Amino acid sequence: MVKIFDTTLRDGEQTPGVSLTPEEKLIIARQLDKLGVNVIEAGFPVSSKGEFESVRAIANEGLTATVCGLSRIIKNDIDRCLDADVGMVHVFVSTSDIQIAHTIKKSREEIVADSIKAVEYVKDHGVLCLFSAMDATRTPPAFLREIFTAVEGAGADIINIPDTVGVMAPSAFHRLVKEVCSYMNILVDVHCHNDFGLAVANSLAAVEAGAREVQVTVNGLGERAGNANLAETVMSLHSIYGAKTSIRTQYLVETARLVERLTETRIPINAPIVGDNAFSHESGIHSHGVIERSDTFEPGIMTPEMVGHRRRIVLGKHTGRHAVKKVLEEAGYHPTEDQLQEILRRIKELGDKGKQVTDADLQTIAEVVLGEIAKGEQALVLKEVAVMTGNTITPTATVRALFRGEEKVLANIGVGPVDAAVKAVREILGQDSLIRVRDFRIEAITGGSDALAEVVIGVEDTEGRKVSARSAREDIVMASVEALVSAINRLLLLEERTSK
Amino acid sequence: MVKIFDTTLRDGEQTPGVSLTPEEKLIIARQLDKLGVNVIEAGFPVSSKGEFESVRAIANEGLTATVCGLSRIIKNDIDRCLDADVGMVHVFVSTSDIQIAHTIKKSREEIVADSIKAVEYVKDHGVLCLFSAMDATRTPPAFLREIFTAVEGAGADIINIPDTVGVMAPSAFHRLVKEVCSYMNILVDVHCHNDFGLAVANSLAAVEAGAREVQVTVNGLGERAGNANLAETVMSLHSIYGAKTSIRTQYLVETARLVERLTETRIPINAPIVGDNAFSHESGIHSHGVIERSDTFEPGIMTPEMVGHRRRIVLGKHTGRHAVKKVLEEAGYHPTEDQLQEILRRIKELGDKGKQVTDADLQTIAEVVLGEIAKGEQALVLKEVAVMTGNTITPTATVRALFRGEEKVLANIGVGPVDAAVKAVREILGQDSLIRVRDFRIEAITGGSDALAEVVIGVEDTEGRKVSARSAREDIVMASVEALVSAINRLLLLEERTSK
Repeated sequence: MVKIFDTTLRDGEQTPGVSLTPEEKLIIARQLDKLGVNVIEAGFPVSSKGEFESVRAIANEGLTATVCGLSRIIKNDIDRCLDADVGMVHVFVSTSDIQIAHTIKKSREEIVADSIKAVEYVKDHGVLCLFSAMDATRTPPAFLREIFTAVEGAGADIINIPDTVGVMAPSAFHRLVKEVCSYMNILVDVHCHNDFGLAVANSLAAVEAGAREVQVTVNGLGERAGNANLAETVMSLHSIYGAKTSIRTQYLVETARLVERLTETRIPINAPIVGDNAFSHESGIHSHGVIERSDTFEPGIMTPEMVGHRRRIVLGKHTGRHAVKKVLEEAGYHPTEDQLQEILRRIKELGDKGKQVTDADLQTIAEVVLGEIAKGEQALVLKEVAVMTGNTITPTATVRALFRGEEKVLANIGVGPVDAAVKAVREILGQDSLIRVRDFRIEAITGGSDALAEVVIGVEDTEGRKVSARSAREDIVMASVEALVSAINRLLLLEERTSK
Repeated sequence: MVKIFDTTLRDGEQTPGVSLTPEEKLIIARQLDKLGVNVIEAGFPVSSKGEFESVRAIANEGLTATVCGLSRIIKNDIDRCLDADVGMVHVFVSTSDIQIAHTIKKSREEIVADSIKAVEYVKDHGVLCLFSAMDATRTPPAFLREIFTAVEGAGADIINIPDTVGVMAPSAFHRLVKEVCSYMNILVDVHCHNDFGLAVANSLAAVEAGAREVQVTVNGLGERAGNANLAETVMSLHSIYGAKTSIRTQYLVETARLVERLTETRIPINAPIVGDNAFSHESGIHSHGVIERSDTFEPGIMTPEMVGHRRRIVLGKHTGRHAVKKVLEEAGYHPTEDQLQEILRRIKELGDKGKQVTDADLQTIAEVVLGEIAKGEQALVLKEVAVMTGNTITPTATVRALFRGEEKVLANIGVGPVDAAVKAVREILGQDSLIRVRDFRIEAITGGSDALAEVVIGVEDTEGRKVSARSAREDIVMASVEALVSAINRLLLLEERTSK
């Protein structure tokens, strides 16, 4: 059994550019608990009032995981952790010559003495104590042994070997961890940084050498190149080593996407395990093999189902009608010939603009087209939309549409072009319409100003019927209008059906 | 000396969703040659006429690197490579039972005989021959030895051990490669896939075991989770192992960004070596250390200069006094101790709200606290913006602005209203402007269509100076324009200050 110590809320949040609200941290903590991590390092309580409150909220959430707070070997830091009701205090101090000389500026004797004092103080308060020798991999082995032995004697429950600046090769880290395990009687934990892309391999080498706890972050977030990636470490342990962890691997993709959304740091398409392409195959030798039998060109020891992912055959921009139809049918879509033509037209439109047609684009387009009820049946059919905005004019939209067969033209203003367009469309429905917009979200804009914007709109009527619809376009105004019209049509259809 | 065999143009282009034009492939090939790779695998000539022409163009470009073409063990495939004037033919065949049974469907005897014939045919034409046993890591070791020994006898120059489905742990791969090296007398090369995040570590383990050539791709592109990342493999070899390669490491970041742009696959911010955060520091403890001496919280054995990168101090809620002071001083502000504390408090307040602190935010905060608002200095002053879109008109924007005192009016079109506006603003700067938009994000839209949209735009000049700015408005188009203008002004100011 290898324990999984997650530091997404601490190291992950230290990623330059990433910042989470206390509410977002709580959402992530609940997800980590659902995933089954053993320890959640919730933050560094002394660093700010907000951080303290956030750690305390997580500690009092009643999670199964142990909640840990970070602390220097300073009484006040430890007190803030204890005040935040954590079940474990993670005390750390620099032990390498370079960090000692340039940051803490104390003697080795003082460092050892203060470490012992800190560990004893934590243990006097009845909570677990993890001790980290920061920059351990650049610390002279003899001093590392001295301080680890001292804190073990002081009652530490776990010692941690951090490769703080990510300079270890797996073979060298294996030797170091093996040596430390040879003289320690308590749990040995490692914390690897990814400066050379080796954090996961180093964590696995440590487990081979005797470590029984690994510190990881979701999506490998963290300072500089980040920390060991949770999904990669866990799945390597499960599938390659056959080692047990408490992780419910079927939530790995869900967890990665939640953290992606809340931290606003994109998972690259080629990310192992959780990336869009992890189980994707484009046409050619690979997809041919996979269609015949998936493990010809997949690890086999890891399937998409195990991690909550799915296998996809990806289409390129030169895809024909037949291939699009096949992929759509496999995904459970059954387009009519007209819908298929419309999907193809939109794919080509995207391609003509020099955009790659990703599978996500295809699906979004398909959902928009198939989400529309056959044209003839639609209550609201859009004919013309024109929207203006600027810094010296009031955002204005004009919409011409057929509503239940009657043509209407209406203009309206708003606080922005999207708002003006939404108001004009709603006005088409008439003054007595009881439909209101309940939710308006932009789900994904990636890349440049010419990227695809995905808009999700939820509408509801006075009887509480709710419908949401989605649209994807490079033009955010038109995407909003399309999503709204689609949602309204679905809601009107639902009203007809359910009032019969 | 470890040889670097780059397959970005072949494996990299097989990344689902990636597609390169022949012109783009030639640009990448020239960059790889500038970088100093030993071999460029340019493509799979038999697969299409375009692919053939592209390989031939690269082979005839007069590059220093050897240009290689991929081929099955089929005469026609090899002929297409030879017709494309390559200096090396890479012949491959499946050797694992699962791939033999489900894809090629031949007996082992036929496979060995056909492999020998293929290698001999290549060598009869006087070019180099690399032989790959596809899915080698799931092939019985005895059969691997049989086929490798046979092709060595047939005159192959290099044999390749591919971990085709990425299932190796470094310790296991080390054993396999060591065994193969023990009976081979020719160069042993490896090709690792990244399904568990271990491709780089496996490549290094192979070098430890005796392999002297590694196959890599820029940004780790490739099928599924991709292939071994070039920058990570090369820098690990250089900085951790002290091994020599022919790579001019100062072009690593430039190469990664070129491939990012042409393949339209984003480098994640936490990518090792080439990511935006690779040498960025935010947390108080880390940035304090780095300001005092960079290798306290950086590998030291790898500096930003070595790879063509830059060090950055990023501000956020984890930032300490030292870092804020340094960043402000570099921007020409000299706060008192009280002012510094107030600036710090406001930065943390922004961070606790879950907001990224942009360069423009810091400057605004500093200007407010120091009481030095200096509107008159702005290079670009917006006078008039008018934007139109709709379902029957092309999104169009008109912008009137003062640029360095001169009034300009320009109109442009785009794929949406935001894109049109961004293009019009950029045109105001003139045709020779070297400022480009590097990042465009909508940070938060919640609630209804009248909700506040928050846009963060990052711009960069050719010397790598980066500035980000934010704007929040109900009108997403105007928010984008304002953020862009703000970012451009800050960047122009930074250019003035830092070029003095």
